[in-house]
Amino acid sequence: MKRVYLDHNATTPLRPEARDAMIAAMEVCGNPSSVHAEGRAAKAVIEKARAQVAAAFGADGADIVFTSGSTEGAALALEGRGLHGAAIEHDAVRAWTVEDLPVSRQGAVTVADPGRSTLQLANSETGIIQALPKGLAVTDATQAFGKLPIAFNWLDVQMALVSAHKLGGPKGVGAVVMKRGTDLEARIKGGGQEMGRRSGTENVIGIAGFGAAAETAARDLADGVWEKVAELRNILEKALEAGSKSTIFVGKDQDRLPNTLCFATPGWKGETQVMQMDLSGFAISAGSACSSGKVRASAVLTAMGYDEATAASAVRVSLGPETSEEDVLRFAETWLEKEKKHRARAA
Amino acid sequence: MKRVYLDHNATTPLRPEARDAMIAAMEVCGNPSSVHAEGRAAKAVIEKARAQVAAAFGADGADIVFTSGSTEGAALALEGRGLHGAAIEHDAVRAWTVEDLPVSRQGAVTVADPGRSTLQLANSETGIIQALPKGLAVTDATQAFGKLPIAFNWLDVQMALVSAHKLGGPKGVGAVVMKRGTDLEARIKGGGQEMGRRSGTENVIGIAGFGAAAETAARDLADGVWEKVAELRNILEKALEAGSKSTIFVGKDQDRLPNTLCFATPGWKGETQVMQMDLSGFAISAGSACSSGKVRASAVLTAMGYDEATAASAVRVSLGPETSEEDVLRFAETWLEKEKKHRARAA
Repeated sequence: MKRVYLDHNATTPLRPEARDAMIAAMEVCGNPSSVHAEGRAAKAVIEKARAQVAAAFGADGADIVFTSGSTEGAALALEGRGLHGAAIEHDAVRAWTVEDLPVSRQGAVTVADPGRSTLQLANSETGIIQALPKGLAVTDATQAFGKLPIAFNWLDVQMALVSAHKLGGPKGVGAVVMKRGTDLEARIKGGGQEMGRRSGTENVIGIAGFGAAAETAARDLADGVWEKVAELRNILEKALEAGSKSTIFVGKDQDRLPNTLCFATPGWKGETQVMQMDLSGFAISAGSACSSGKVRASAVLTAMGYDEATAASAVRVSLGPETSEEDVLRFAETWLEKEKKHRARAA
Repeated sequence: MKRVYLDHNATTPLRPEARDAMIAAMEVCGNPSSVHAEGRAAKAVIEKARAQVAAAFGADGADIVFTSGSTEGAALALEGRGLHGAAIEHDAVRAWTVEDLPVSRQGAVTVADPGRSTLQLANSETGIIQALPKGLAVTDATQAFGKLPIAFNWLDVQMALVSAHKLGGPKGVGAVVMKRGTDLEARIKGGGQEMGRRSGTENVIGIAGFGAAAETAARDLADGVWEKVAELRNILEKALEAGSKSTIFVGKDQDRLPNTLCFATPGWKGETQVMQMDLSGFAISAGSACSSGKVRASAVLTAMGYDEATAASAVRVSLGPETSEEDVLRFAETWLEKEKKHRARAA
């Protein structure tokens, strides 16, 4: 039986438009820093993608500094600044923050000093969306970009982190988007690429894929694709809710990403669920992909005040534009069967 | 007329084997950190490439930490260590060193304290190869990997920097190769990928291309491809030498990369030559690609004791496996015509 991929917040299948752009960029042999025709052609590939990312992110006129992804972007935007952050941020952000921002049971973060703080736009595990305060220093928009309409130019934040592989682009490419002229010291130094903010020969093929993916993702958003995804997510949530009385649906009444469903079934470990569903043909996750090798309770849920047993039993199902109603109904049926067996064993 | 690309030290055309591996990797949708089948498939792509790079670099059993290229690799291997270095190193290395190692007129660097020093294996502008002292802390092998037979395990250096796009892989991928178990603090932190030494979701497609390119480059080396390239380089050098009495051939009598030719014609700016040759259909460079946007004398040549006028007139021609005898003869003819015109104007 065909496998069903329901782990789009971990990473997404490559969009055909990104694939085509990458294969086209493979024919461009120059180094973007070279002044000859071959170099200028490579530079043109990058500048086209830069414009595509800026347009899709509502950031015309802002500076787009390409990176190897949001993890590098977080280091570039945050290292050495001691910004305030919350425990629900991604580990790549948490590595650099003073972690003192309070998180409510509903997953909302309170920011006292926006100009000295970082706050994610949407959470990777729960999908919960934050109301960003004006004047925020840095927002991690990795999970939101491509799934929510965003106009960076209207957000009034200094910098945003974005990543290609969360919206149908390749893994290993991202960007820091910043208000024009923002003073930012390079962390990776050398040839002075990206206006001196990030040295190193650019990932031309990957950047081409990022641009095409961002443009297509913006078109999907405008076409209402994610509203259909949200309907399927809600169908799935209702089906699971109807079948399992002991399951907690995290963020159910909050403003959430349209594709994300996080639920906890205390006593049944998230990792066990992931493995059982994998064997049955479904890809889901417990916690974020980056830390999913480690068996531990979700730091996001514990920060929201859930107990360890609940946090350790949470799983995340994240849908994509290609997810079908049949996919989610088959998932619900399979998961509920396993949940029943789990209860029988536990009783 | 078909253009002739003679700037392989700046970057190389993508090898067909790398292209095929990248297109195949595009079908793998998982995140290498995910535990489900899709994640494991992505992880397998990376581990295959890691083995290919290790084998090609003679580094079986060593640790290969994938990066976004040698510039990031240099930051990872060198930042905060204050190692001794020479002025002929790449800017990405120079950014982190105490620059006090002496350089001879022949381009040879003397290292007093190998365990506290970094030294390139081959220079990007002149192609001059260094005899690495035993126990060296770090070597930048970016230009050498793929063009020279290298056995990392026999070099007795702690770490080496390598990059995919110098040997027919994609731009934006590289690695730090290190003796197993070397203690190295991550510069980019977060999810703990690459054994905690370099966080961030891996560039799966690019890494697949690196692995295939490294494997093919090693096969080319074994097949004697670079000996033929060296013959063509020598034919070119002799033709230019016979036609231009005022031109200096840098590194002519030194141990050099087989594909590199660096020559200076005092009074005729390198940038001017690059632009004139570009208009005539030839891609070459003045200085390294990363800094070629800037009009300045080659730091490598000035470090070797050449005067500013000579250093500012240097150009680099770097051949590749696909370069033909016709290519180099056409280049020599065209360049010599222009050199004659330059002399006529200057007279």
